[in-house]
Amino acid sequence: MNDIASAIIKIKALLGDRLNTSHAVRDLHGQNETYFQIMLPDAVAFPNSTDEVSKILKICTQYNCPIIPWGVGTSLEGHALPIRGGITVDLSNMNKVLKVQNEDMFAIVQPGVTREFLNHELRATGLFFSVDPGANATLGGMAATRASGTTTVRYGTMRENVLAMEIVLSDGRIIRTGTRAKKSSAGYDLTKLFVGSEGTLGIITELTLALQGQPEAISAAVCDFPTIKAAVNVVIMAIQAGIPLARIELIDEICIRAINKYSKLDYPETPHLFMEFHGSNAGVADQSQTMAEIIKEFNGGDFQWSTKPEDRNKLWAARHQAYYATKALFPKQIGMSTDVCVPISKLAKAISDTQDDLKEFNVVGTIIGHVGDGNYHTLLFCDPNNAKELERNKLLAHRMAQRALDVGGTVTGEHGIGMGKLDYMAQEHGEALNVMSDLKRLFDPKNIMNPGKMIDLN
Amino acid sequence: MNDIASAIIKIKALLGDRLNTSHAVRDLHGQNETYFQIMLPDAVAFPNSTDEVSKILKICTQYNCPIIPWGVGTSLEGHALPIRGGITVDLSNMNKVLKVQNEDMFAIVQPGVTREFLNHELRATGLFFSVDPGANATLGGMAATRASGTTTVRYGTMRENVLAMEIVLSDGRIIRTGTRAKKSSAGYDLTKLFVGSEGTLGIITELTLALQGQPEAISAAVCDFPTIKAAVNVVIMAIQAGIPLARIELIDEICIRAINKYSKLDYPETPHLFMEFHGSNAGVADQSQTMAEIIKEFNGGDFQWSTKPEDRNKLWAARHQAYYATKALFPKQIGMSTDVCVPISKLAKAISDTQDDLKEFNVVGTIIGHVGDGNYHTLLFCDPNNAKELERNKLLAHRMAQRALDVGGTVTGEHGIGMGKLDYMAQEHGEALNVMSDLKRLFDPKNIMNPGKMIDLN
Repeated sequence: MNDIASAIIKIKALLGDRLNTSHAVRDLHGQNETYFQIMLPDAVAFPNSTDEVSKILKICTQYNCPIIPWGVGTSLEGHALPIRGGITVDLSNMNKVLKVQNEDMFAIVQPGVTREFLNHELRATGLFFSVDPGANATLGGMAATRASGTTTVRYGTMRENVLAMEIVLSDGRIIRTGTRAKKSSAGYDLTKLFVGSEGTLGIITELTLALQGQPEAISAAVCDFPTIKAAVNVVIMAIQAGIPLARIELIDEICIRAINKYSKLDYPETPHLFMEFHGSNAGVADQSQTMAEIIKEFNGGDFQWSTKPEDRNKLWAARHQAYYATKALFPKQIGMSTDVCVPISKLAKAISDTQDDLKEFNVVGTIIGHVGDGNYHTLLFCDPNNAKELERNKLLAHRMAQRALDVGGTVTGEHGIGMGKLDYMAQEHGEALNVMSDLKRLFDPKNIMNPGKMIDLN
Repeated sequence: MNDIASAIIKIKALLGDRLNTSHAVRDLHGQNETYFQIMLPDAVAFPNSTDEVSKILKICTQYNCPIIPWGVGTSLEGHALPIRGGITVDLSNMNKVLKVQNEDMFAIVQPGVTREFLNHELRATGLFFSVDPGANATLGGMAATRASGTTTVRYGTMRENVLAMEIVLSDGRIIRTGTRAKKSSAGYDLTKLFVGSEGTLGIITELTLALQGQPEAISAAVCDFPTIKAAVNVVIMAIQAGIPLARIELIDEICIRAINKYSKLDYPETPHLFMEFHGSNAGVADQSQTMAEIIKEFNGGDFQWSTKPEDRNKLWAARHQAYYATKALFPKQIGMSTDVCVPISKLAKAISDTQDDLKEFNVVGTIIGHVGDGNYHTLLFCDPNNAKELERNKLLAHRMAQRALDVGGTVTGEHGIGMGKLDYMAQEHGEALNVMSDLKRLFDPKNIMNPGKMIDLN
């Protein structure tokens, strides 16, 4: 039997005003950025320290009270919804950059630091933190969902960029995983076990993150293609040729139309690649020229690259507005961003099949892809009061997920499982899902850590 | 109570001649490449398939019989020694490259494939497998110890290069981890949990490995430095400047002396960096020139680079002979290769302290470092019948390990824990070691999987 009320009384005694049961604050933590129903937690705790997080977890273990970690709520799969009630632990007070070690190219941060804030703090160091999922998410949240984004093709996902962590386990024990060395062969890789664990095994209270050197030069380019397949083939060739693409984003023709309309641009309404190269001045020139040759081979359009920040900012502004440009086509509707990842050789067919689905259902949906990773998203909208439309969008997303599994891919490249993808876990993992469930039971025997997400023990 | 004899009878019935109890075969599997005592397993099994591995594990679970996976026995920390007896499972019959998918740049292999064999099979594809620990180890063994080596600074360790696996658990269940997509946010990262688990959680029966494109050009260079510190500072600067070093190896002055003597070369007897650059023709020229500028800044010696294969092969032959060159100084003695990894900012001091230790003990030991990773080794030799000398070498290794821990590093960068580093697990991991022990109990409740290695439950 859980006893949330008693847990709240005990945590109130610990945190005072920093345990909030007001409707306004609970409502704020019951929202999500997509189609899930709003659900209010019973209370919201704002700990200031690892020690407080540990005490909160001990209390919640004692009273079987569900705990939901909260960063800034930018999850797209309902990760932070309190589906079984309980206490949301908002980590926004734990928002310090604790250390930046320039020579070793790492930063130690608290989980409530956002990626933009970290990069702001790093601006004088010549270093930057590379993972960029678009949203200004917290680094704790990004680690918890194994986030990635546009620069992953070059610099990796959170999996590669979290070097070490401090974690509070469900019983309140505090552990440290990893070291400050770049690599280690000492013991089980607990860091990687917690990256992507979605708050279901413990709460991240500190992260050591790899940083990258600011490149001497950055060049950017955009290019149109006759077909998705031609664009994807260019990327396959470029990667095999060893061009260290820093960003390579595919935008389908429907999304280009939306961007043109929204941003008053005049890109040809065909698939496009938006790309960026990082390196020395000579290096980016060399990369860009090799890319131009490959593009020509696959009948790409006019390819111009620029190292001017104003050109680059304009180009990426257009790409980053893809979501809002699509949303502008559907005022007052709610969005769903689908997310699958396939072997790159299967990407062109997967996208083209999705485009066929959209035509079959007579739905306007735009497609963007982190094509270097084989990861793509369809942005779908619907009337929030029209259950039939929502079901239709879910069916479109389901077909994407099913096709990804059929070709050896995954139902989520970067958004995570949360509530939205729970039903695919068995199909994607088979017998390994039983092992994951055993791990969940080991770390969280009372099933209080973000219960019902990723691994459903009920 | 374990009943090894009954397990052998059952496995004999399963495998026939492929369960071998001859002294010669047991002796071969009781050897190790360093200072540990020889220990013979009770039998050696040679399974041909995952299904046979599964059946062997079921039998061993039934009879509480220890199981020790065996690749080619190149471990430097006694990983494959049957310290509690039992059955060594030699995976050399499972040696097929099952699939090479060029466009997606991955290969699927059985665990008994060696890295050189895989690269031989890949020679016509324009792709290669990057992880190079020196020894021609099996890929299963390399995954099990989270191996790395000279190219890790550019292409990563086994952690980054194993994308998916098939594993047989101690109870005989077969699971698959990971997918064929480059990234995923679906579930706990079981792949990374098994990479580096040293056969203590299950047996790897299949691996999906990331491949790299053969660079258009490779240039190599060697350069002498007045001090270790100057050489390390060059590497720190080069990495921050974004030079994508493919290899960057530090050789101390004692090792240079040994190499000069062994290979009849005449390098100045000071610390050296051996390095390699991969890229386009223009790219390696650009990288090499930027490196030359940095080297000048830190008073490095004459810097000449070459893209000619014969120059490169000569240079790397000298580096790869470091071990044999050191060994040649000590005929009939046995070697110990120490292995620690520290934040790169602490590397110069760590190496210099070790050099001081060697002087204090009046020992000739050579030092080589994968300096881009902060990882270094001291090669120590001693008379196998002189316990005092062995203890002295162990003490030198202990001081290295202790200093690595003191600066936030790890007691092993790439060789693993095995038997040799077991005593440091508690100090390196603290409370997290209890979590690791819980994981071991979860996956291997009877403690039959390579018992006594990495996590000692007794």
